[in-house]
Amino acid sequence: MNYEDFFAARLEDLHKGGNYRVFADLERVVGSFPKAKNYTADGSVQDVAIWCNNDYLGMGMHPQVLEAMKVALDSCGAGAGGTRNISGTNHYHVLLEQELASWHNKDAALLFTSGYVANMTALMTLGSKIPGLVMFSDELNHNSMIEGVRHSRAPKEIWKHNDYNDLHRRLSQYDRDTPKLVVFESVYSMDGDIAPLEKIIEVAEHHNAMTFLDEVHAVGMYGEYGSGVAERDGVRERVTILQATMGKAIGVIGGYVAASHNLIDFIRSYGAGFIFTTSLPPTIAAGALESVRYLREHNELRIRHQERAATLKARLQALNIPVLPSVSHIVPVHVGNAALCKQASDDLLNRHGVYVQPINYPTVPVGTERLRITPTPLHEDADMDHLCAAMGEIWDRLNLPRSITAAAAE
Amino acid sequence: MNYEDFFAARLEDLHKGGNYRVFADLERVVGSFPKAKNYTADGSVQDVAIWCNNDYLGMGMHPQVLEAMKVALDSCGAGAGGTRNISGTNHYHVLLEQELASWHNKDAALLFTSGYVANMTALMTLGSKIPGLVMFSDELNHNSMIEGVRHSRAPKEIWKHNDYNDLHRRLSQYDRDTPKLVVFESVYSMDGDIAPLEKIIEVAEHHNAMTFLDEVHAVGMYGEYGSGVAERDGVRERVTILQATMGKAIGVIGGYVAASHNLIDFIRSYGAGFIFTTSLPPTIAAGALESVRYLREHNELRIRHQERAATLKARLQALNIPVLPSVSHIVPVHVGNAALCKQASDDLLNRHGVYVQPINYPTVPVGTERLRITPTPLHEDADMDHLCAAMGEIWDRLNLPRSITAAAAE
Repeated sequence: MNYEDFFAARLEDLHKGGNYRVFADLERVVGSFPKAKNYTADGSVQDVAIWCNNDYLGMGMHPQVLEAMKVALDSCGAGAGGTRNISGTNHYHVLLEQELASWHNKDAALLFTSGYVANMTALMTLGSKIPGLVMFSDELNHNSMIEGVRHSRAPKEIWKHNDYNDLHRRLSQYDRDTPKLVVFESVYSMDGDIAPLEKIIEVAEHHNAMTFLDEVHAVGMYGEYGSGVAERDGVRERVTILQATMGKAIGVIGGYVAASHNLIDFIRSYGAGFIFTTSLPPTIAAGALESVRYLREHNELRIRHQERAATLKARLQALNIPVLPSVSHIVPVHVGNAALCKQASDDLLNRHGVYVQPINYPTVPVGTERLRITPTPLHEDADMDHLCAAMGEIWDRLNLPRSITAAAAE
Repeated sequence: MNYEDFFAARLEDLHKGGNYRVFADLERVVGSFPKAKNYTADGSVQDVAIWCNNDYLGMGMHPQVLEAMKVALDSCGAGAGGTRNISGTNHYHVLLEQELASWHNKDAALLFTSGYVANMTALMTLGSKIPGLVMFSDELNHNSMIEGVRHSRAPKEIWKHNDYNDLHRRLSQYDRDTPKLVVFESVYSMDGDIAPLEKIIEVAEHHNAMTFLDEVHAVGMYGEYGSGVAERDGVRERVTILQATMGKAIGVIGGYVAASHNLIDFIRSYGAGFIFTTSLPPTIAAGALESVRYLREHNELRIRHQERAATLKARLQALNIPVLPSVSHIVPVHVGNAALCKQASDDLLNRHGVYVQPINYPTVPVGTERLRITPTPLHEDADMDHLCAAMGEIWDRLNLPRSITAAAAE
């Protein structure tokens, strides 16, 4: 076997299918977001406006967060210096875990190096260490949950997206004593829809199943104190395990789970992806801690965020540009073709200095390709004027769809 | 099933077996390392000297690294704001990948959120995407490699630790056209032994197998330019894929692989654990970049590091304390009993303010329990006087072994 030929051929497949990804080489600029620098292939630097980042509330550029990180850098240094067990637990980790537990009204929380690792490790640990556990996973769950369920090697049932009747039917196949875990998200990030949490939890409780809720695209943004949709819907005490990230609305990096003392201690004690890895730098924990404390107290940021999203949806609809029916802060715009989606994104960048990454297969199904726009409280009216003018021009010039096709509306 | 009872029972198992882990709640203090603060359970704060951290060269507290991180914080903010593909590639990521590739004399490098994720993702991607690939894994490989090999679901052969003859026999069972990957480490972190790289690579080349070398405990510390044992031994161009971390000698966090353009592009394009996760904060990439640049040019740090390790080994041996036969910077001291190992560690901390975490099963085999000491260039003679006096007192008082048992010498 010639290995280099093999790799070259698989890359050529991606090029041929239009699925080869080129990363925009960016530099966000603190104080002037959404403006950023784009380092182009020819060596020049272009000014762009970012409209697709997941630092949803701009907390990653908040002066208090940056200041807290600098204080921790000066006092504790750059890295943690070890795994949590071997010299790598810093006092900031302990404080942050306490803060997160309190925010979600849970006994305890546990930090991971990312939300991806939090999902993988927690699900793999539960699925492989609880004899006979059956996993019930929403069909549109994120890759990190799919991989966690899969690699746990526990038997699984995939239920129809947000369909608690289907979940009920599938749970009914197992007797009450079979250990069960229902795995789902609150905000689904590509469509912007929100799960009917109370209904799902009711069904799970009826069957004595634990619930594992991913609030990655919700923490910081929903509920009066910003701890997520479970808080907004008044059900957070009924969720068995809450999982989230500190890399989106909290603005830094890292993931966590929150649950009962014993459950958290169980994952802490048995989770390989937690045990055998260097812990988060103290400066990261300090930044996340400051950000969470701020978010708890500043509901006006969430009100402004929702207003910005609603305003952008209305403005695009007024331009006859087809916004998918999101009920969240995410503004997905239908294109429905991979090549056109890439073209629209390229033209927005090159002709208008607007950066919105195309979302194509395999991230979304073929025929539902889209531009996924994420307005933040830092996007002003003038920024929105610029975006809407650019989108209007591109929609006209490329003759993009004016309505949502059946495939995308499903 | 009562879930809470189940979790409580599994935790009780750990308590009964002496394997329940309590994390020391520390705060390293920039400028006065190895001194640190230890937040104790009773709420007081104790001064301790850290002797078991993996920031092997103290780069995590280096003023140039901290300054580079602050500059990046001020300019780019706290987090990256997205996955690498969706607005989360920052110019620091690009510069760091170029620097790492150049350091290892490879075409290209790819960043991950941790060394753990780098191993898992790279091995899972290669093992699951190359049809028919067989993995050949050293029996003492780190958990992250074991999990990567296992979850790739590729057929595997486990070869005897560092035994290239056994590797040869196992490779000989497969014909030349079968794709093969030999997976191993350079420095094994619990014993401090170093693999015979040239012999292993020769055997792999003879059988047309790729090699995947983990230099997590070697980068920064071996070779004139510090890129690892493969550099020191003059074989780095013959290693197919090099993997390492930025969380140990580089002093920050994150992992990477370095290899040919096509191989790196293949993992970049197909690796789920790379694609679906928020990228490292720009400030982390900036700190690692500065650290690597510094390490390339400062061989005197490595000379001092080796001298510190050799001096400590000699001093402990002079006290008749049994040092395991490490040929690296790691100083493992034999205890051979889990309860005594924990007792020795507790007494070092409580009676002498010396922090060395016990290393018990499952991290090492039963009967080989040890204290694993990691002297850095920042540990002065006076620090070593203090450590040696403390160790001597504990060895006498607890009547700990004066020689290495057969089990530990294997």
